[in-house]
Amino acid sequence: MQKIRIGIVGYGNVGKGAALAVEASSDMELKAIFTRRDPKAVKTGNSHIQILSIDSAASMTDDIDVMLLCGGSAADLPEQGPYFASMFNTVDSYDTHAKIPEYMAAVDSAAKNTTAIISAGWDPGLFSMMRTLYESVLPRGETYTFWGKGVSQGHSDAIRQIDGVTHAVQYTIPIDSAVEAVRSGETPVFSAKDKMKRNCYVVIKPDADKTRIENAIITMPHYFADYDTSVNFIGIEEFTKNHSEMPHGGMVLRSGSTGKNKQVMEFSLNLESNPEFTGSIIVAYARAAYKMAKEGLYGAKTVFDVPLSYLSDKDRMLLIKDLL
Amino acid sequence: MQKIRIGIVGYGNVGKGAALAVEASSDMELKAIFTRRDPKAVKTGNSHIQILSIDSAASMTDDIDVMLLCGGSAADLPEQGPYFASMFNTVDSYDTHAKIPEYMAAVDSAAKNTTAIISAGWDPGLFSMMRTLYESVLPRGETYTFWGKGVSQGHSDAIRQIDGVTHAVQYTIPIDSAVEAVRSGETPVFSAKDKMKRNCYVVIKPDADKTRIENAIITMPHYFADYDTSVNFIGIEEFTKNHSEMPHGGMVLRSGSTGKNKQVMEFSLNLESNPEFTGSIIVAYARAAYKMAKEGLYGAKTVFDVPLSYLSDKDRMLLIKDLL
Repeated sequence: MQKIRIGIVGYGNVGKGAALAVEASSDMELKAIFTRRDPKAVKTGNSHIQILSIDSAASMTDDIDVMLLCGGSAADLPEQGPYFASMFNTVDSYDTHAKIPEYMAAVDSAAKNTTAIISAGWDPGLFSMMRTLYESVLPRGETYTFWGKGVSQGHSDAIRQIDGVTHAVQYTIPIDSAVEAVRSGETPVFSAKDKMKRNCYVVIKPDADKTRIENAIITMPHYFADYDTSVNFIGIEEFTKNHSEMPHGGMVLRSGSTGKNKQVMEFSLNLESNPEFTGSIIVAYARAAYKMAKEGLYGAKTVFDVPLSYLSDKDRMLLIKDLL
Repeated sequence: MQKIRIGIVGYGNVGKGAALAVEASSDMELKAIFTRRDPKAVKTGNSHIQILSIDSAASMTDDIDVMLLCGGSAADLPEQGPYFASMFNTVDSYDTHAKIPEYMAAVDSAAKNTTAIISAGWDPGLFSMMRTLYESVLPRGETYTFWGKGVSQGHSDAIRQIDGVTHAVQYTIPIDSAVEAVRSGETPVFSAKDKMKRNCYVVIKPDADKTRIENAIITMPHYFADYDTSVNFIGIEEFTKNHSEMPHGGMVLRSGSTGKNKQVMEFSLNLESNPEFTGSIIVAYARAAYKMAKEGLYGAKTVFDVPLSYLSDKDRMLLIKDLL
């Protein structure tokens, strides 16, 4: 059987995760990675992988079945999404929730003869699928999304802007009592503060003032002021040893009812590597984009539009026999 | 907007649950319940609901958009599935795992101009969806399904066959240490006994011999002999008060890996009423059957074939805006 030929645009953390996931999929092969950097400067640890300039992609429409867009949502995807969808089937994990309709419209206009699956990560993505499933099955109830335990890049960056800080990481952590209340079938109304707390691990310059820095963090508007925030000053050795990974995860719960009975649904992720997991989802949806394009199902699609059988490398009847 | 007109075939526990779910769905109306019993003998507690003989269904193809088949998998559905699919769009929760391909083929042959969604409960059904999603996203890993805490009707029946027993209920309970091992990212190999235990609550005749009955239970081949089984003798008052409901639930977990990192996915249900939840799933898939039939997507379908947007009463763009 011919393998699905994959291209990856952008070789950051998610792109690296996607490359690993392609390697783990026996029905796919990685044809090339496209970068804006000098291709010679990109190291993959695998000399078989072709690294090319992003400008050469346009000449390779016959060589690649699905292009995985692994750039950032702020600057890269608004431009790259429509550009690549005009030539290739694509999958991305565009995650600026508020701008998804606008992004989708731009990609849809470009995807005249291609299938372009957008926002296929875990949130948006798998968590969105659960929210839709939940309220369809249990229309009476409330849905709750909790993020963490995991690193928030935006909050970590914000701490690093403070004078005297050299390294920082911020973990978002769900508050157990809130999760348990939902699990028990209650439908509480939470503020953001009720649902999560923020734990910060910070390395500072030798002469920096801890009190000033801690105060700058816990009073920072929007980022920390409205939350229960703890600040832990640690040395660079401990930081490197214990806080260099990118774990993440979270939960989506439905606390609903039918008749007089409580019904609770829960989906959770516990991820040692957030970008590798996101890359794995993108790769599963690449299989779907490939199949949908074969059927002429063109245009911008979301996780709500894709039947689960399209994600699998198993034949439909085998899926029904083995997994139904 | 015209409401989706629903018929229910079979008014047992699942049929009652489906009726409640139709009532909770503003885009649907319950046109009639069809029964093999004398219609006058069926009480719904709602005088607006029309109860008809199952034989009258064939004359109502213009009055009903989707027929929900709520009979049993052993005797009812093998006959009713193809019969109703030849005339109506249908949804059922056929759950004899080993015979699904055969049942599907029979329904598919009948559903020439209708959409017939089979096996749309929670297992088979939602749990099957998770198994497919899991192995598509994390091809390296193992999937584990745990059932319970919940009542097993088959095991409860088996206890009631023992001489001297008047009432019995058996709860299947997942073993915590097994669940925790999977959650931690291990991939253990379990026997059935490692994953679940069986707790029995039994009411006996005043003169019956507890030792003999307990022994008959815990040594019963296939049902109990291979499991850690506890037997609790209780009075009829306690039985009626604490053991008359039909709770159930369970978990499907994926313990997988990407690169050098562990990645764990989990879906769980905690249900106070198993049949009401199953009825709610059937009703969500009735909406999908209705939409798919409008598009000419005829034949037997499973949860693997249905995009999640088809389950929702929200417009696709609203879903994308609100839930993605």
